[in-house]
Amino acid sequence: MNYSSKLLEQAIAEFGRLPGVGHKTALRLVLHLLKQPDADVLRFAESLTRLKSEIKHCSTCHNISDNVQCEICASSKRDAGMICVVEDMRDVMAIENTHQYQGVYHVLGGLISPMDGIGPSDLMIESLVKRVEQGPVTEIILALSATMEGDTTIFYLYKKLRHFGIPITTIARGIAFGGELEYVDEVTLGRSIATRVPYERNIA
Amino acid sequence: MNYSSKLLEQAIAEFGRLPGVGHKTALRLVLHLLKQPDADVLRFAESLTRLKSEIKHCSTCHNISDNVQCEICASSKRDAGMICVVEDMRDVMAIENTHQYQGVYHVLGGLISPMDGIGPSDLMIESLVKRVEQGPVTEIILALSATMEGDTTIFYLYKKLRHFGIPITTIARGIAFGGELEYVDEVTLGRSIATRVPYERNIA
Repeated sequence: MNYSSKLLEQAIAEFGRLPGVGHKTALRLVLHLLKQPDADVLRFAESLTRLKSEIKHCSTCHNISDNVQCEICASSKRDAGMICVVEDMRDVMAIENTHQYQGVYHVLGGLISPMDGIGPSDLMIESLVKRVEQGPVTEIILALSATMEGDTTIFYLYKKLRHFGIPITTIARGIAFGGELEYVDEVTLGRSIATRVPYERNIA
Repeated sequence: MNYSSKLLEQAIAEFGRLPGVGHKTALRLVLHLLKQPDADVLRFAESLTRLKSEIKHCSTCHNISDNVQCEICASSKRDAGMICVVEDMRDVMAIENTHQYQGVYHVLGGLISPMDGIGPSDLMIESLVKRVEQGPVTEIILALSATMEGDTTIFYLYKKLRHFGIPITTIARGIAFGGELEYVDEVTLGRSIATRVPYERNIA
């Protein structure tokens, strides 16, 4: 491609490196930015620079934060004794959006995955064990994906944490609310039947 | 959405302003950048800053350029007497990629469109007339879209330029190469039949 401008070519290459952004999309985005006011594009560039230079990870739960301790860990309204263990910050967002949870989090930064070369030492597991040792913890909720990696990590964490004698729970698995039975995959449906619950518990 | 970080929120908002980038995509892109090395993200930010502050428009053809005159206008290999008039720089790229054209360009910066409030004075038409007045021009090719706006602009340019007595041509319209007749729209097919050419011209 002949771009008549090295600067243009560079900007297109930078956008093209983003996931899911191909060459044509990158070109379209750059041409869009070229038409925007200077101030808008400079603000965009600055927000990227600050994103990398100023963003921190919470020293307690490892979630992304603007300060040494994140808003959730710093809040006096949250139950610091209930720790919800999640894979990454997207899961924190998802759970926060449910407005159902009033405890705190612990972000592992990934899941144990031998295929990808990720072992327990690559994750924030040691700091979780320390947290449980130090503070009074009443419950540990393992809210990890229902995949092989999630199950492996849950099993590893369970072995590491059970000697504390604190209740360790996992989030409920089963068919989704509003899900029609005929479209549910067999594994989920099979496990939903095996782990069926008394009706009284559902209406409680 | 609770992001636990204002910096993150800002970066997501900036990406979300790009065309075709929704909230979820913006979040995915920002989380991707967060995982990249600092240097990569800073280079991205810098390329955006330079894009706006350093990029120029060629003083002759108004194409995007790193210098006062673009590579095409500055090249001694190009026929400066043949001017191809196009809507924007994407068309220059498209024509350059055919490797069929050895003349120079003139980028209008848009098409006449009363619906969008774009009149002849908003486009680089005056500078095209001046170019034709000053230099020896042998042919003006109007390579504009086959839309109502394109046709209006072609008609306007033709009226403005015909008194110079220079050949004014438009790019050929008809069914695409490889196009099957049954899938061609009626207007194109109708005009293709009306403007049919002797077979000898096709094989010349």
